[in-house]
Amino acid sequence: MNNYASARIGILGAGGYAGRELARLVARHPRARIAWATSESDAGRALGDVVSGVDGPALVRAEDAALGAADCVVSCLPHGESAKWMERARGADVRAIDLSADLRVPGEVTPGWAREAVYGLPELHRARIADSRLVANPGCYPTAALLALAPLLRRGLISGPVIVNAASGVTGAGRNAKRELMFAEIAEGFSAYAVGNVHRHLAEMRAQAAGIAGGAAPELVFTPHLLPVKRGILETIYVPLAEPIRDLLQMWMDDYSSEPFVRVMRDRMPALADVVGSNRVAIGVAAVQNVSAPMLTIVATIDNLLKGAAGQAVQNLNLMFGWGETEGLA
Amino acid sequence: MNNYASARIGILGAGGYAGRELARLVARHPRARIAWATSESDAGRALGDVVSGVDGPALVRAEDAALGAADCVVSCLPHGESAKWMERARGADVRAIDLSADLRVPGEVTPGWAREAVYGLPELHRARIADSRLVANPGCYPTAALLALAPLLRRGLISGPVIVNAASGVTGAGRNAKRELMFAEIAEGFSAYAVGNVHRHLAEMRAQAAGIAGGAAPELVFTPHLLPVKRGILETIYVPLAEPIRDLLQMWMDDYSSEPFVRVMRDRMPALADVVGSNRVAIGVAAVQNVSAPMLTIVATIDNLLKGAAGQAVQNLNLMFGWGETEGLA
Amino acid sequence: MNNYASARIGILGAGGYAGRELARLVARHPRARIAWATSESDAGRALGDVVSGVDGPALVRAEDAALGAADCVVSCLPHGESAKWMERARGADVRAIDLSADLRVPGEVTPGWAREAVYGLPELHRARIADSRLVANPGCYPTAALLALAPLLRRGLISGPVIVNAASGVTGAGRNAKRELMFAEIAEGFSAYAVGNVHRHLAEMRAQAAGIAGGAAPELVFTPHLLPVKRGILETIYVPLAEPIRDLLQMWMDDYSSEPFVRVMRDRMPALADVVGSNRVAIGVAAVQNVSAPMLTIVATIDNLLKGAAGQAVQNLNLMFGWGETEGLA
Amino acid sequence: MNNYASARIGILGAGGYAGRELARLVARHPRARIAWATSESDAGRALGDVVSGVDGPALVRAEDAALGAADCVVSCLPHGESAKWMERARGADVRAIDLSADLRVPGEVTPGWAREAVYGLPELHRARIADSRLVANPGCYPTAALLALAPLLRRGLISGPVIVNAASGVTGAGRNAKRELMFAEIAEGFSAYAVGNVHRHLAEMRAQAAGIAGGAAPELVFTPHLLPVKRGILETIYVPLAEPIRDLLQMWMDDYSSEPFVRVMRDRMPALADVVGSNRVAIGVAAVQNVSAPMLTIVATIDNLLKGAAGQAVQNLNLMFGWGETEGLA
Repeated sequence: MNNYASARIGILGAGGYAGRELARLVARHPRARIAWATSESDAGRALGDVVSGVDGPALVRAEDAALGAADCVVSCLPHGESAKWMERARGADVRAIDLSADLRVPGEVTPGWAREAVYGLPELHRARIADSRLVANPGCYPTAALLALAPLLRRGLISGPVIVNAASGVTGAGRNAKRELMFAEIAEGFSAYAVGNVHRHLAEMRAQAAGIAGGAAPELVFTPHLLPVKRGILETIYVPLAEPIRDLLQMWMDDYSSEPFVRVMRDRMPALADVVGSNRVAIGVAAVQNVSAPMLTIVATIDNLLKGAAGQAVQNLNLMFGWGETEGLA
Repeated sequence: MNNYASARIGILGAGGYAGRELARLVARHPRARIAWATSESDAGRALGDVVSGVDGPALVRAEDAALGAADCVVSCLPHGESAKWMERARGADVRAIDLSADLRVPGEVTPGWAREAVYGLPELHRARIADSRLVANPGCYPTAALLALAPLLRRGLISGPVIVNAASGVTGAGRNAKRELMFAEIAEGFSAYAVGNVHRHLAEMRAQAAGIAGGAAPELVFTPHLLPVKRGILETIYVPLAEPIRDLLQMWMDDYSSEPFVRVMRDRMPALADVVGSNRVAIGVAAVQNVSAPMLTIVATIDNLLKGAAGQAVQNLNLMFGWGETEGLA
Repeated sequence: MNNYASARIGILGAGGYAGRELARLVARHPRARIAWATSESDAGRALGDVVSGVDGPALVRAEDAALGAADCVVSCLPHGESAKWMERARGADVRAIDLSADLRVPGEVTPGWAREAVYGLPELHRARIADSRLVANPGCYPTAALLALAPLLRRGLISGPVIVNAASGVTGAGRNAKRELMFAEIAEGFSAYAVGNVHRHLAEMRAQAAGIAGGAAPELVFTPHLLPVKRGILETIYVPLAEPIRDLLQMWMDDYSSEPFVRVMRDRMPALADVVGSNRVAIGVAAVQNVSAPMLTIVATIDNLLKGAAGQAVQNLNLMFGWGETEGLA
Repeated sequence: MNNYASARIGILGAGGYAGRELARLVARHPRARIAWATSESDAGRALGDVVSGVDGPALVRAEDAALGAADCVVSCLPHGESAKWMERARGADVRAIDLSADLRVPGEVTPGWAREAVYGLPELHRARIADSRLVANPGCYPTAALLALAPLLRRGLISGPVIVNAASGVTGAGRNAKRELMFAEIAEGFSAYAVGNVHRHLAEMRAQAAGIAGGAAPELVFTPHLLPVKRGILETIYVPLAEPIRDLLQMWMDDYSSEPFVRVMRDRMPALADVVGSNRVAIGVAAVQNVSAPMLTIVATIDNLLKGAAGQAVQNLNLMFGWGETEGLA
């Protein structure tokens, strides 16, 4: 861990939904400031024209960004485009946080150096993040699912396939113009996608769940849905248990008692309104009645642009620079 | 079955969302007409003031309705208030359709005569509905779930608890003023309710599923959610199978090939936009990849006010009076 | 006027919002049927894949459409692309209705033959439409404004510039993918556009208003706004009067007493919910209090895709073929 | 003006939309803290249960609030209920800010002491607010209209009735359950209300406009509309001018050059998205083309809960206590 009084942040891809949210957070952060920010389509425009209410330098193309003029580069570039910039940041000896999926799942397609990346879920890997120079910021869906399931995974209490039924607001699908994301197509609508357990986030969830479980993890079945809201993810998770659990909430309360961004709900289930605009995850748990084998339903919710993207990136930034974990996020 | 050239319909509770939809459908039906319509809060007002674009008699209080002046009474009254009117209709020797839950699940609290009620899901009980004088119109959530699962239930292919993860538009919660249903609370929101498998519709689903299965049915775990849309239900259903199924869609296509209101999707999953405004149920099926035991995901969607309420009531009406099943619903 | 038992309709541009609405209306019309329908991007696909719930021939490219196989060609093509097809229809001796702006305002840029086009606002030009072979279907904003103002224009009662403050749902902006029309940009938003009285519809409104007034018409100031709804237009119109008017509503009730698609509101102002899904215009009128010179506020509302586009086209079709004016529109 | 290092704030009516927003702002304010907060319906509950993410004392009934334990009482009570509490605060020698309309327009119904209240629009009355002990926080509609019109009013440039066509999100209508504010009634809707220039805010606008103009002010015609959004007001204002104005924006830029919460738009008109979530008013101006007499269109927009209510209250608080005007509002 390193203690810095302040740091200069370079933002790759500041024009998308996560990038704009990140620019807002950094601009208001007491210790960080925007060194430069990139946008291919808006290069040359003032940052404040693209990110309402934020002062900062004019946007530049990524190729024109002075990587070395930042203490940390945060990439909000699309999947597939981000890794090469992370490698350049590494070459420039600059810390980096990648919001894309490129470095999250070490595998055949990931370059060797990418194995240095720490999975940036602070509630699970706080110490390693603080010591790292390269962080793979988690996906939005995995963030909620892993924090919801970690207490059960750690204790080896899950006895069969876990169903993760998830719904996300449309900012999760990015800011490029697509007919299927137009208002007249989304309003008054609702749909499932990647049905059949084939979503890209599945591998990420499985790899991390196995890590938490200390080896073999339960199988996961994941179905995302598209909500007619701007932001927010809510996951309804069905967990078969080896045996019934008493004092249901106690495990979550024990595990998360000192976590500033985890709220375990005692009296009711969480809803989007409990988290949108904040970096929190909110979690509720209920035993399933009227079935013969023990089963839990967990409801977990986050703001996909904050705890699911830019907020979590700032939380990681705070850890990497030795700052208070909640600075700029309260 | 009886053949009538036309029929006079009495509507109990025409001021709620289902009641207004029913009034619209009956007003446009080629063979039915509104004999009278009731509303406790709007008695005395013209029907057209309450149901935009519909001509008809002034609204009356239920106590003032001439039951015998209708050939069929359709009740859109709330659960708990409807049964007594169904009994009066029976006493007046008038056919009746009940949209409330009062007569759907024969049980301790249901009066003896209510066992005469036929469960009004035409795709399952067409002949019995045509011969009946009293129909219990199905709940919105059970309609979608039962039509989605029937091909599997009939063939005994389900091997474990079925997860029914459902989401509904707000008209499903009724038209009485409640703070939690106000625009500023619902817009940009999403939430689960009755978490833990405790929703009233569960008993109805279980009873009907057992009937289709010819006895013991698989266990059901049902979680409803509240969507920020006016109308529409989408259910994502996870079904563990005894063994893998080839030609996945074939069973649904075989069972529903002649059904005018069932659409089996070949190329993609259905979404709300495929059904809102119509009396159709749309069903898609996918094998779950990346798990060891065979499992299906089914997505089923209906308009909660049409196939889930008033539209299905008209479909039942058509059967009860010997009319074409799609009359007034195309 | 000609009496046909039925007619074959060709639809140019059936994939946009107005085109799809038109396809739905024609498919359900008792006397019309779709001869062919075109879409450049979806040519080759079944019509029902693009227009949910509508059976019909596979979509073709406009160049491949057999103009002469239709009794009437209806164009839902964009402004600037439509006129040439109207000319071809004329060459093929086929009736035609143009939903674009191309033929609405005779002017320098309009070809000579286009002066044959009748402005298709039935409440103003019913007899001429019935006799015509070429109809320019009015713009959505002008339809509402002209029907609201006609009683005053006819009687010469307006004494100064009329302010037309209008708001439209997003389907008015078309179905091509644009970032500014994406859900995350529109939801929870509201904005004015073409501020400063520079919108294209102004010339159309002025020309028609002058026609109704029998010469010089009052000046118009028109500001459109973009609403976060799918469909519907509401205009709030401020009219300075030469002198106060008694029995305010009487003029509108007199002028529109036999109009099937005009609803003059007696007790309250109309809202989008009074017209969306119908071919009606709803109009309310109030004297402006608390000012020294006499002034009226008129509120007028239509469904931009029906009375503002496809519904009005069918109304014109009914007139052109001698059918009942409300056929297929009830 | 008094300089305090910090102050204790009492909030009357913390459960409504403005009250909750105020509680959030005060909780995060570097110099203010919540001394107590009242809610009749939620008394006894933790503040954080009612205002998500805010720590603070349990809610009490207004009768049980220790007025004297606050340095400033801020009332978010409804119109008609607030004045008596302002009088009690005055009796307890405590500063007070009233968000209701009760003290805004001195008149027959206002008690004599209420004339001491300063109209809390800082951009107009900064010095007087700083010296006052009782502030009448402006209405949301008047805030936007007055800031838009002040440069013209001051210079006496307006030559006739000004049309203020306004639209507001539903939080402006309060948090009490009403059928007409339910999601299913508001979504996909839009409507005008108080048509005919009869809204309560008119008197407030007229009185203040006259004050700015130094006597007689132009007549105002005001029509509010209800938008299907949670928050935000946008006003489109039509101003007849005595003569054309060159360098249109210059007056607004001159008058507001040092105002932290006024944004004059140079290149485009403002929209809700420019202000929602901030305490800013954004203003755009355009000359009206295609009319004979000179006229302007002004578009002004605010967040009705911030600059239109709680944010402006904090701005006033900052002035009253000698703090930086933007503290807690950045």
